Amino acid sequence: MRHYRWIIGVLGVATAGATFAACTNQAERAMHAQQAGGALQASSSIRELMRQRGLREADVEAALKTYVPSGKKDDYIIFASGGQSGQVLVIGVPSMRLLKVIAVFAPEPWQGYAYGGESDRVLAEGKQEGHSITWADVHHPNLSESAGDYDGKYLFVNDNANARVAVIDLGDFATKQIVANPLVASDHGGAFVDPNTRYVIETSQYPSPLGREYAPISDYKTKYRGLAMFWRFDREKGRIDPSQSFAVELPPYTQDLADAGKLVSDGWAFINSFNTEMAVGGTLEGKPPIESGASQNEMDYLHVINWKRAEELVAAGRAQEVHGVRVLPLAVTAAEGVLTLIGEPKSPHGCDVTPDGTGVVVGGKLDTHATVYDFAKIKALIDGKRYEGKDEYGIPILPFKDSIRGQVEIGLGPLHTVFDDRGNAYTSVFIESKVAKWSLKDLKLLEKLPVHYNIGHIMAAEGDTVSPDGKYVVAMNKMSLDRFTSVGPLYPQNFQLIDVTGPKMRLLYDMPIGLGEPHYSQMIKADKLHPLKVYPPGENPYTGGHDPNAVEGGKERIVRNGKVVDVYMSAVRSHFTPDRLELEQGDTVHLHVTNLEQAEDQTHGFTIDMYNVNLSLEPGKHENVTFTADVPGVFPFYCTEFCSALHLEMAGYMLVKPKAKGGS
Amino acid sequence: MRHYRWIIGVLGVATAGATFAACTNQAERAMHAQQAGGALQASSSIRELMRQRGLREADVEAALKTYVPSGKKDDYIIFASGGQSGQVLVIGVPSMRLLKVIAVFAPEPWQGYAYGGESDRVLAEGKQEGHSITWADVHHPNLSESAGDYDGKYLFVNDNANARVAVIDLGDFATKQIVANPLVASDHGGAFVDPNTRYVIETSQYPSPLGREYAPISDYKTKYRGLAMFWRFDREKGRIDPSQSFAVELPPYTQDLADAGKLVSDGWAFINSFNTEMAVGGTLEGKPPIESGASQNEMDYLHVINWKRAEELVAAGRAQEVHGVRVLPLAVTAAEGVLTLIGEPKSPHGCDVTPDGTGVVVGGKLDTHATVYDFAKIKALIDGKRYEGKDEYGIPILPFKDSIRGQVEIGLGPLHTVFDDRGNAYTSVFIESKVAKWSLKDLKLLEKLPVHYNIGHIMAAEGDTVSPDGKYVVAMNKMSLDRFTSVGPLYPQNFQLIDVTGPKMRLLYDMPIGLGEPHYSQMIKADKLHPLKVYPPGENPYTGGHDPNAVEGGKERIVRNGKVVDVYMSAVRSHFTPDRLELEQGDTVHLHVTNLEQAEDQTHGFTIDMYNVNLSLEPGKHENVTFTADVPGVFPFYCTEFCSALHLEMAGYMLVKPKAKGGS
Repeated sequence: MRHYRWIIGVLGVATAGATFAACTNQAERAMHAQQAGGALQASSSIRELMRQRGLREADVEAALKTYVPSGKKDDYIIFASGGQSGQVLVIGVPSMRLLKVIAVFAPEPWQGYAYGGESDRVLAEGKQEGHSITWADVHHPNLSESAGDYDGKYLFVNDNANARVAVIDLGDFATKQIVANPLVASDHGGAFVDPNTRYVIETSQYPSPLGREYAPISDYKTKYRGLAMFWRFDREKGRIDPSQSFAVELPPYTQDLADAGKLVSDGWAFINSFNTEMAVGGTLEGKPPIESGASQNEMDYLHVINWKRAEELVAAGRAQEVHGVRVLPLAVTAAEGVLTLIGEPKSPHGCDVTPDGTGVVVGGKLDTHATVYDFAKIKALIDGKRYEGKDEYGIPILPFKDSIRGQVEIGLGPLHTVFDDRGNAYTSVFIESKVAKWSLKDLKLLEKLPVHYNIGHIMAAEGDTVSPDGKYVVAMNKMSLDRFTSVGPLYPQNFQLIDVTGPKMRLLYDMPIGLGEPHYSQMIKADKLHPLKVYPPGENPYTGGHDPNAVEGGKERIVRNGKVVDVYMSAVRSHFTPDRLELEQGDTVHLHVTNLEQAEDQTHGFTIDMYNVNLSLEPGKHENVTFTADVPGVFPFYCTEFCSALHLEMAGYMLVKPKAKGGS
Repeated sequence: MRHYRWIIGVLGVATAGATFAACTNQAERAMHAQQAGGALQASSSIRELMRQRGLREADVEAALKTYVPSGKKDDYIIFASGGQSGQVLVIGVPSMRLLKVIAVFAPEPWQGYAYGGESDRVLAEGKQEGHSITWADVHHPNLSESAGDYDGKYLFVNDNANARVAVIDLGDFATKQIVANPLVASDHGGAFVDPNTRYVIETSQYPSPLGREYAPISDYKTKYRGLAMFWRFDREKGRIDPSQSFAVELPPYTQDLADAGKLVSDGWAFINSFNTEMAVGGTLEGKPPIESGASQNEMDYLHVINWKRAEELVAAGRAQEVHGVRVLPLAVTAAEGVLTLIGEPKSPHGCDVTPDGTGVVVGGKLDTHATVYDFAKIKALIDGKRYEGKDEYGIPILPFKDSIRGQVEIGLGPLHTVFDDRGNAYTSVFIESKVAKWSLKDLKLLEKLPVHYNIGHIMAAEGDTVSPDGKYVVAMNKMSLDRFTSVGPLYPQNFQLIDVTGPKMRLLYDMPIGLGEPHYSQMIKADKLHPLKVYPPGENPYTGGHDPNAVEGGKERIVRNGKVVDVYMSAVRSHFTPDRLELEQGDTVHLHVTNLEQAEDQTHGFTIDMYNVNLSLEPGKHENVTFTADVPGVFPFYCTEFCSALHLEMAGYMLVKPKAKGGS
């Protein structure tokens, strides 16, 4: 507050204005020379502004800390999962302005994503068992890392609902690949990377028979399984290489969140879990629902995976192939020290490796503590095989008390934990709707800040790297209730930006999220991103090179072979060449269109009436579209991106002559 | 600037701090009593904050005028077209925060819009010639009006690319109806309402043979036509009633934007047009593109439509039925004074009726003027049949000079015009990237404000009503170029909020739009909106009543009839009943699920792995889903909206037994 004494001060001067008269002429002259005569007048105007808008002093500070003037840029960029929207949200910090929604798992016409062009193939890669899936429950975005730091090159996200992972290239902010997991039905732990992005790690949630087979619920313990998938990422190609990937079979506990080790714990992965009771519900039959069935045990299991060892065993041929994936079976996993379990208190949630890699923090939905596991102790216990027993699948279990550094009393329902650059941890407390700040060093609770409301995930600037920035923490609140103007029964979520630079946390900004429920997000320094501004002429962003069908100015043409028509079209302000397509009903049309512009932000769109085609042709971009002209008639096509004063004139006609000659 | 003298003042005091020492003890005591001693200390801290963040004094004012503290609400709500996204954006003012994206023409999984539930039928209404269309180029949102003022009940939007209109109910911010125009191929002029929302008006853009017939381009003048569609809106049902709607046939000029008359001009509609040259391009054949072919004439035509007269003629049986729509033919239109033309200078654009209804403002893309037409003069000329001639379709033409109040010299490329409450007009100037403020009374240019960049539409608070509010104008800029952190070759658009309360316009805020290119928008007082917070128990938002399949707690059940299985399911924190579905491969499943919650913001989601189903079950809402269990296996279903600490446990299994008995 003391920062804002000056306002009181100025107001004070204003109300006690008379006292100014008592100032010496010297002082008055000096102040007038500085236009301080305006202080009175202005103090009343700022007071008026605060009164009119109901601003408190803390609000003024928050406003000045978050406002980004026209022409200035944000310092950080948030990549947030779009939740059920299936997309990724790109947000500027500190302004908390939504800069872009990246189309990933759902079609998005503005970006021309899966509306007739090359990107149709990307979305189609996400099919499961021949079912086309045009949405996702996107949970955890993860930026590519080099030596444990975000490198700004790629972003990976998982689809919790359909067990898929997507690769987004931050060179053009476009989705380049979707990989469908052929073995499991859902993946909550994903998409996490190791410190050098050798693997994109995807771990299953609700157990099911591996390979998507059928097995009755009575076979749950014997036939249902969990899985940790290690997708090999080829950085040169910018794609996941399934042929170099492998999986580790897990017991049918409900694996939850995962994180990769770093520095001292590099080569290891950690997954928390719940429902080690293996409850399967049965509410209609009068059995307890999973929510209570899964809340019986005092302890569930933290899964500790030695993936470097798993990689060696797979290389040594110890894996079995299931639907083309090399899977390390539970027996090998158990026998070779690939998987070790440690108790986790009361409905555990969250699994966050500390920046130095020495600890793993796990919360508990029905617990009041955050538990800090000590990697050095864990490693020593594993090396010494000092197990306290095995689970019914033969997986060794380490003694809880000997595996932890300690526990911190946090409050009701601690979930996720992030870190700053000064040794502090910040844990989201769902039931209390608070952010708890505590010290990693002495595990002491320092402060609790109320948030609005029901915080799920929490995120910090460069928070998942080996060198967090501090500065900002974001509370990702699941409910907004009274925070925003009502927009109907479906409420937005609420991202709250928190300044963590001072001795006390300061709430700076409420950002409504009205297009999906984000789960996790990451925040990267803006200057680490270096995206393309225009594509090279004729670029196909999905093959990553010059398209063989790219069109040069003057070489536009229409080539007919029987019922197949190839149209080589160019787009430039403000016309298409050709601008007239004369077809026969039933013709197959291959449209090849290139935007000849090379100026920034000179994007053209392309749509044909009724054909459900919309392309976004950024400068230099080439697109290929195939369709059948099945309906006779006259179909205007036009540029859908406002490109010039004569943009509306950037149009043409596709004329489809009926099979029965003569037209109407 | 003078508002901010106080900062200079305070800084002045700080730098010239010594002068304070010269103040009398009385003054010092008084100031210290007011903590004004803090002024020094604070002045340095505010200066430091301004320095750190590079804020100028005007930025501080803008920040304090736009920041909305946590828990406070925005004063106005913007409904913006989502452009090619096919959706509608809901934005708070002055914070310029995106509150929600309303799914309209494109599927949206978070809202469960067209992902397996009841809303599938709404999107399916938008088919053209059997082609399913899952996107739109949304151009002009229009709020429902009563006596010429926004009433906050409904929103209408048009799809320029596929000639469709959608009805959004602001009771729950959900799309309730899509009407596909069976006669034309595109509709740029839409969806405008008359002052009492008797009609939703949709006017065509690119001419084509009425009824979507085929005709060669050589028949352009004889067989291609424009159209003004008057969709009758049934306010009680909240739906457009096609059976009570009618259309007016227009010449094959390219009709552009439209607006409805109000007050003195109520009962009339106005449409500007371009390409009265009827140029059809032919770029590949070496003919001039439409952009130049359509820019030959000095004058195009403002279309003046007497829709009250048209309504009488239709009632009198003068219309012809085309594809079930009563169309007033060109001959009748011409003969009965339904349509009159007036010249419009140089590639006209925009068509905006003044708040008092006495004038119509039209810009010109290649002109430097805004032209103000005078309705009284137009009415007198029409009543006196004082035509200067007829076009080749026999439509009477009024003398331009006798029809206008005058012209205002604006600058290069004036497009659209909006109004405040003090007799000022604000015109977007595309080529100059400026907002021009001018006086309606004396048609004098008052001020020009640079915007960033290439402003298309412009919008004002309650600007299309008979009583604009003034306060705010929004520049809807097509390009952002250097305004925001780069997010790849596809740049966001830029909404700039402008304060118009003072003698000079003040730029307050840049809002990036990264999910479509909005065309137009409207801004309504937030307190005019009164949406539902929860649905009544068992409500079906698409039929508008209690669903016959709604489920009550305790009455959940599974009913099998041969291969058809009806599942009556309830959702409540945090379980589904039933939570297990045992099916045979090939079963047809009718899932009926009701959210039993009645607490605000207690939404549940529902998805089944791989079945491309996602429902948003707001409190009280009921949904019906039908699918075939064609693939054998184990499919988890779960709640996709974080609803409680045990949300992850809100899950169940759908088990599909293979046809060949015995499972895997």
